[in-house]
Amino acid sequence: MAEKFVSEKNLKFMIYEVFDAEALTKYPYFAEHSREVFDMVIDAGLKMGRDLFKPIFSEMDKKAPVFEDGSVKVHPAVREIMRASGEGGWIGAHAPFESGGQQLPLTIGTAFRFILTAANYSASVYPFLTSGAAHLINSFGSDELKEKYIEKMFSGEWQGTMAMTEPQAGSSLTDLSTTADPTDEEYYKLKGQKIFISAGDHDGVDNVVHLLIGKIRGAPPGVKGISLFVVPKLRPGDDGGLEPNDVAVTTIYHKLGYRGAPITQLSFGENGDCRAYLVGEPHQGLKYMFQMMNEARIDVGLGATGIASAAYYASLEYCGERLQGRKITSKDPLQPQIPIIEHADIKRMLLFQRAVVDGALSIVLQCAKWSDMGMMSEGEEKEKYELLLDLLTPIAKSYPSEMGICSVSQGLQCLGGYGYCDEFPLEQYYRDARIHPIHEGTTGIQGMDLLGRKVVMKNGKAFSLYLEEIAKTVKQAQSKEESALLAQDLEKAVELLKEVTAHVTGIAIKGEIELFLADATLYLEMFGIVCVAWQWLLQAVNALNGLDKKSSGPDADFYRGKLFTAKYFFAYELPKIEGLATRLKNSDGLTVEMQEEYFND
Amino acid sequence: MAEKFVSEKNLKFMIYEVFDAEALTKYPYFAEHSREVFDMVIDAGLKMGRDLFKPIFSEMDKKAPVFEDGSVKVHPAVREIMRASGEGGWIGAHAPFESGGQQLPLTIGTAFRFILTAANYSASVYPFLTSGAAHLINSFGSDELKEKYIEKMFSGEWQGTMAMTEPQAGSSLTDLSTTADPTDEEYYKLKGQKIFISAGDHDGVDNVVHLLIGKIRGAPPGVKGISLFVVPKLRPGDDGGLEPNDVAVTTIYHKLGYRGAPITQLSFGENGDCRAYLVGEPHQGLKYMFQMMNEARIDVGLGATGIASAAYYASLEYCGERLQGRKITSKDPLQPQIPIIEHADIKRMLLFQRAVVDGALSIVLQCAKWSDMGMMSEGEEKEKYELLLDLLTPIAKSYPSEMGICSVSQGLQCLGGYGYCDEFPLEQYYRDARIHPIHEGTTGIQGMDLLGRKVVMKNGKAFSLYLEEIAKTVKQAQSKEESALLAQDLEKAVELLKEVTAHVTGIAIKGEIELFLADATLYLEMFGIVCVAWQWLLQAVNALNGLDKKSSGPDADFYRGKLFTAKYFFAYELPKIEGLATRLKNSDGLTVEMQEEYFND
Repeated sequence: MAEKFVSEKNLKFMIYEVFDAEALTKYPYFAEHSREVFDMVIDAGLKMGRDLFKPIFSEMDKKAPVFEDGSVKVHPAVREIMRASGEGGWIGAHAPFESGGQQLPLTIGTAFRFILTAANYSASVYPFLTSGAAHLINSFGSDELKEKYIEKMFSGEWQGTMAMTEPQAGSSLTDLSTTADPTDEEYYKLKGQKIFISAGDHDGVDNVVHLLIGKIRGAPPGVKGISLFVVPKLRPGDDGGLEPNDVAVTTIYHKLGYRGAPITQLSFGENGDCRAYLVGEPHQGLKYMFQMMNEARIDVGLGATGIASAAYYASLEYCGERLQGRKITSKDPLQPQIPIIEHADIKRMLLFQRAVVDGALSIVLQCAKWSDMGMMSEGEEKEKYELLLDLLTPIAKSYPSEMGICSVSQGLQCLGGYGYCDEFPLEQYYRDARIHPIHEGTTGIQGMDLLGRKVVMKNGKAFSLYLEEIAKTVKQAQSKEESALLAQDLEKAVELLKEVTAHVTGIAIKGEIELFLADATLYLEMFGIVCVAWQWLLQAVNALNGLDKKSSGPDADFYRGKLFTAKYFFAYELPKIEGLATRLKNSDGLTVEMQEEYFND
Repeated sequence: MAEKFVSEKNLKFMIYEVFDAEALTKYPYFAEHSREVFDMVIDAGLKMGRDLFKPIFSEMDKKAPVFEDGSVKVHPAVREIMRASGEGGWIGAHAPFESGGQQLPLTIGTAFRFILTAANYSASVYPFLTSGAAHLINSFGSDELKEKYIEKMFSGEWQGTMAMTEPQAGSSLTDLSTTADPTDEEYYKLKGQKIFISAGDHDGVDNVVHLLIGKIRGAPPGVKGISLFVVPKLRPGDDGGLEPNDVAVTTIYHKLGYRGAPITQLSFGENGDCRAYLVGEPHQGLKYMFQMMNEARIDVGLGATGIASAAYYASLEYCGERLQGRKITSKDPLQPQIPIIEHADIKRMLLFQRAVVDGALSIVLQCAKWSDMGMMSEGEEKEKYELLLDLLTPIAKSYPSEMGICSVSQGLQCLGGYGYCDEFPLEQYYRDARIHPIHEGTTGIQGMDLLGRKVVMKNGKAFSLYLEEIAKTVKQAQSKEESALLAQDLEKAVELLKEVTAHVTGIAIKGEIELFLADATLYLEMFGIVCVAWQWLLQAVNALNGLDKKSSGPDADFYRGKLFTAKYFFAYELPKIEGLATRLKNSDGLTVEMQEEYFND
């Protein structure tokens, strides 16, 4: 069984050389930290991943949660995982010291979480979902809510969830029907159903805290009437006791993968005794929820990258060991067979995986860095980072999710028949990875978000700022010949992206909104490829800088590997935008005009 | 649960309108058949699929074969499936009357098999693998072998297998080590191991007959020393009795999908008493086996198409029923929600699936038609069909396999969270589909076969003949404006393919063989897309002819749907060759030059 699931060397290259996380410690808010602390965080993550998460990766899949007598039983290690995550301070890692957090930069926390998602994605969901839920209470909740919930969530004793989806609504949040009736007390009485709630109930914690959106009776129709509530499974009394809050599990789903975590269907207030506590102002819930949602989207990208990383290293190990065939130029059957990693087509499959994994990780870390920079900045500078983060959130969610699947699939393919069998971990990675284009907003939703909102918002300001960022990297790259060649290709790609963007937004200007968004998913794909090309150029620039310092030995090999992979991305992946651009510039309205009855056959 | 898994209307359009199967009945060999007989075959397939195969689709997955006390127990319905397939004459459908077959054209038999693979892929493997094995004995075996085995195989009492892969050899047949020692009798004594043998043993039949390749002791090294043997699990005596033949199951594999059929690891001759019966001449085994292998490759394409078909209709049904959201142009939350099939992005996902399913089916049927025509022809004409079939076999294997996965994945995506759950069949289709790029020669192997052998064989004669076939369709398409526009695009695509082919074969001419084949998988992909575009043009031409006859009603809707899907393929899929061509014309040797140590990180 493959041992390695992430590359420590690569992770440190990314956070220190590419994204210069150390520079963050110059800000007073992060001044308590240092490179040594960051290194300790990575070490702690690797240790937790290796000792606690990875050993039960396959077992949590095989012994999936069960729903018995109205409650959900999960693998016994979940309690240990929540406890260790709480005690280590990892659930509250990014919260300020005064809230009981560690005030850790998101850039570092993201690297930490990456390790654990790669070690065991299902296991990582429990603590990090709790993180996001607690952060939401911290950001918009009353002091009383904070006091009652945060500590128990940060300690890992209580699970946090995000409760959005309803059976009749799916992705259409306009159609939520969970209703909150005001009372004379400080709470509302809630009634409704939620589906697909990750970790919505389980016996690895003492309580579950739902961050739930619903509507106060009489609220405006549609998304403008959505409010955010804290709805505990057991409500904490002032005496510290817990009493049932009329939240019931209706069922759990049996899933293709991601089986270590229970996805639940929940019923609230069947007996008229479910109390919901408003977070912030009434009818502002969707805005608040988007904080958690946006974090969750980037976390999905991170998780997808983690799974692809583990699959890549498992296949890399196999390819280095498995003997089969000979060089195409020496077919003599009397010669010994060679490890398959020596075949060009296998190297192509491995380079593809590495290009996706390191490229996807790069976008996610870029977003984390912008998030940190936004928090450290004010005024226009702050707005810049926030806009950049907004713009790239759908990319950070969808690129790793979609390409992660392709990457894992190539990993599986490297193992041939063994990849299809459960004696190797690839088949599980393949199943686990498939959730990511679905949850926290499908790829289709991300496409509409990118093109219909993000690219055009504030007259395209985010997009312009983004192009400036790319231009900076292109400039850096021009100083060395190897990177200058890649920079040229990137500039051409950016020109094509601008051309396509002008074309499709031109359709919007003409008022043909359905046509404008008809190929938004393809636009998202094209945008994602250009974005990852940019991130690979950034990595290539830093790899060349590294080679200036070390021109032989393992570090030099690493930097050369980086350069090969960057070149791979530019040679094999970037050209895919040509076909996408051809389609996007067409706008014949084919999918708008296709009629339902033409599907009858 | 979705009921429909294939479209009868589409299948009949393909076999009668596109491929004119009726014309085959003009040949004396097929003169006993008629359109009525063909219709009865399709009806029988639909009935078997609906009543026998589909009802146990999910159950065969959940109750996978078990290996107990040295033998393999499969779902009890397998015996019924083999019996019904035998009694209906389906296992020997293509064999001549005098061998106990039905002398049915492969075109029709392929349509029949397509239905059953779509109904339940795992179940379909048992009879059709037996078909291929029996055909191999029929083609090259002695009269005695034919007499002993064919009848029992055609009746479904005995299972046939193809036993090629060995643990140490994998795809490298050069390295087979299973050894046959000559004896004074009419048999050899066999010793060796085979892995990944589909239906290699089970209790749904009374005997298993392995068509096995190995080496006679002292044979020339490499593939030139491979011989083909019949190796029964139980050897039939002259008295009709069966005695053990020292063939043991070592284990069965636990797989991601395709769970209804047992994949076994077999050990031959552990006790020195395994008799193997030579088929044909010594050392000619690989040539013989390639008959079964080539059939099996096209069958893999067919099975992949079948799974994608079932997944498509399941998702189509869901999209027509599931209400969610509103038209992008009418966001009023007080209006009722609409079926998601009305959203352009959903229509795009459905059109993509249909484009893949009908396109893949088209290639497979094209190959079947060529096979029938080859059998009916002589001399140069026969050579033409055989060369065309040889050329397109890797495409018929790999395009449906690779794109089938993408298609099923889009089907799953249409269902959102439900697609990931086992209450809908998509997750099983997703698991089942993943086998196809692996078995019967991986996609990488198909790429090398296409570029390294097929395109260049006989000085590119097959490729030239293929271009002539395309040119004929282009000419037909020029008579109507709608198809003429598509024909123009196809001509450009063919020019690009010729350009790329000239470029890469130019590298071969320079003797740089490793570089020549380094991107063979991408060449295969590009070739496949152009090929399917051609098949879509052929379908468009016939759909337009159909519309001439019926311009309203369900038939007209069907033809219009065909045209939309053809246009979809040309607008969304064909442009993908642009990026592929860019890469293929580059030949920078990136994957050749990448060193193993650069992967260390």
